Amino acid sequence: MAAEIVNPGTGTGAGLDESFDLDPAFALHRGGKMAVESTVPVRNRDDLSLAYTPGVAKVCTAIAEQPDLVNDYTWKSNVVAVVTDGTAVLGLGDIGPEASLPVMEGKAILFKQFGGVDAVPIALATKNVDEIVDTVVRMAPSFGGVNLEDISAPRCFEIERRLQEALDIPVFHDDQHGTAVVTLAALRNAARLTDRSLGDLRAVISGAGAAGVAIAKFLLEAGLGDVAVADRKGIVSRDRDDLTPVKRELAELTNKANLSGSLESALAGADVFIGVSGGTVPEPAVASMAPGACVFAMANPNPEVHPDIAHKYAAVVATGRSDYPNQINNVLAFPGIFAGALQVRASRITEGMKIAAANALADVVGDALAADYVIPSPFDERVAPAVTAAVAAAARAEGVARR
Amino acid sequence: MAAEIVNPGTGTGAGLDESFDLDPAFALHRGGKMAVESTVPVRNRDDLSLAYTPGVAKVCTAIAEQPDLVNDYTWKSNVVAVVTDGTAVLGLGDIGPEASLPVMEGKAILFKQFGGVDAVPIALATKNVDEIVDTVVRMAPSFGGVNLEDISAPRCFEIERRLQEALDIPVFHDDQHGTAVVTLAALRNAARLTDRSLGDLRAVISGAGAAGVAIAKFLLEAGLGDVAVADRKGIVSRDRDDLTPVKRELAELTNKANLSGSLESALAGADVFIGVSGGTVPEPAVASMAPGACVFAMANPNPEVHPDIAHKYAAVVATGRSDYPNQINNVLAFPGIFAGALQVRASRITEGMKIAAANALADVVGDALAADYVIPSPFDERVAPAVTAAVAAAARAEGVARR
Repeated sequence: MAAEIVNPGTGTGAGLDESFDLDPAFALHRGGKMAVESTVPVRNRDDLSLAYTPGVAKVCTAIAEQPDLVNDYTWKSNVVAVVTDGTAVLGLGDIGPEASLPVMEGKAILFKQFGGVDAVPIALATKNVDEIVDTVVRMAPSFGGVNLEDISAPRCFEIERRLQEALDIPVFHDDQHGTAVVTLAALRNAARLTDRSLGDLRAVISGAGAAGVAIAKFLLEAGLGDVAVADRKGIVSRDRDDLTPVKRELAELTNKANLSGSLESALAGADVFIGVSGGTVPEPAVASMAPGACVFAMANPNPEVHPDIAHKYAAVVATGRSDYPNQINNVLAFPGIFAGALQVRASRITEGMKIAAANALADVVGDALAADYVIPSPFDERVAPAVTAAVAAAARAEGVARR
Repeated sequence: MAAEIVNPGTGTGAGLDESFDLDPAFALHRGGKMAVESTVPVRNRDDLSLAYTPGVAKVCTAIAEQPDLVNDYTWKSNVVAVVTDGTAVLGLGDIGPEASLPVMEGKAILFKQFGGVDAVPIALATKNVDEIVDTVVRMAPSFGGVNLEDISAPRCFEIERRLQEALDIPVFHDDQHGTAVVTLAALRNAARLTDRSLGDLRAVISGAGAAGVAIAKFLLEAGLGDVAVADRKGIVSRDRDDLTPVKRELAELTNKANLSGSLESALAGADVFIGVSGGTVPEPAVASMAPGACVFAMANPNPEVHPDIAHKYAAVVATGRSDYPNQINNVLAFPGIFAGALQVRASRITEGMKIAAANALADVVGDALAADYVIPSPFDERVAPAVTAAVAAAARAEGVARR
């Protein structure tokens, strides 16, 4: 074929491609990480006449007359759009839609691998909130759910809220809620290990971005005693006059003790530290925490508190890293959450469904609970089925299931 | 799991689903016709650290620095969005985005089966031209091409033109150009069979929608002697004062003989009839065509001229049906056209690439040429590789290839 006679390196990037591939991460990514497959045969005219014209016409007509049938006779009810604008990709920041695609493909294959959910990367060439909302609303007929990913705060909050209002399918910003669900699961087990209830615990969260805000709200929802959140300027409190609307709401909901000042000062006597910010917490601040403290230092690749330091003072230590015990990894949550929601065709993902997901995830640990095992491994095959079942049941209990 | 204890028929459509499935077309469609698959392993922490964090970060960074690498290290350069607004689905008309999805999935699996191209259905919840254009432009970073499908005329012309202007990836309205390419291939072989050149032929096209307009322009591009197009009101001519802008342009380009009046009158002495309209052509009009006529009656399921009638007067008869010889089926063209364009990362699909596709398709017939074999079967395995290679080579020759 003609392709063989031309240098594949022509154009921008000529010659560089192949040297990249000496790195195993690049070699693995060459050609992308995903594909579409047909689940029906198309071997001959008879197959074609069922899967395409003329047979397909009666299926189309049936859906036109009875719209819910789209969930039975297309892949809609098992496919999620993984939507980003590329503004907050990993720790890399605003790298744009194209450069975000390897992460979105990674997310898509994790959806499939862990939840059996089909997922399609949709990286958008706009950062405008109205345009993002409009675009996703227009695409929505093709999808059973929307996973928002790596969209910067505070835009992510408004985008998620408006999409949830506009659509009758689940819309879920994983950087917020996936992280919150896994954090709660780990914290619930940490409390069980140290013989306390969630209501006994006071937590301090470093970081008031997507994850920090969502974790704070979710832990309060789950019954934590108190939560204070610190941004770069210190503890978010009702006394501050420099707060964005999102942080102002946070100030109303959190920080019952009305702490102010630095993160470090708030840690004195605190039971839980949750880091979703990067940066470093000085050792004396960790030492000032209450006995039996939990340190969840989730920044990647450099935890806010190094595990070796954390272990000197804390009863339970978790990180975002796979090479330490107790990895807080979103992949423990989002595949099962969407699989459960799609299974019952939930119209949205409620707080109760997320709580159910966290409880199911915590329960997988069971009697094996230990300081270095408060959360299951991402490769524990019991996780996704347990989360799926719990989320589906909660959707029914909360009246958002449609079958 | 909780799913097992609940009646799956709850909700709208309860109980009807299963009776639908007595029909083999519905049974085949249950659950949809496609899925996503991972093409890399995700078995353990090492796999995960390459396919997702932290390994993916360096791939993202490389693309941010050198944008063309997105084509090497994601699936972008092999994935096409199959975009519709559901306004002109098969012969069913404006049935809406959800009801169009079975057709779009069918298209997607044909892309894969015949061209090795990944394709994703995107059915849009808007019929507004500006909104469709904006939406597709914003989604475009995720895709290597856009196949427009089943969008009603004349909106389809403006949507395609504006998207082609806005994007640097192929945008192709298959109802127009796929049909035109296969028609030209069949007509080229019909001319060869009857020992005439394309310049000797005068064609009459019934139908001035997406397919009719595109076929008329493309046949003239390919050198046909003359082409006249009829809409419901008769032959489109410069003398008519009731023409839309698209038909006015058509009146300028076509109908050198300046015919007017009915389709039937224009057929007198014509060499070629091409039906893309539905309706019926009376037998006397077919009888009035020139000796050695070609009748391509492509309406489905009821050809404009029944093949039994056509064979009484015509040297070559083709239809859109799979149960007669010479089926004019778009699947002969679009998989290879996109596969070829994507292979060389063409920025668009030029007239030359479409002509090359038609020639390659015609050439597959080769020495086996006969009145009942002017176009290959959709299941001829030589077709897609031949079209792919020809389109890739033409893209390079025309300077739109990027590798």
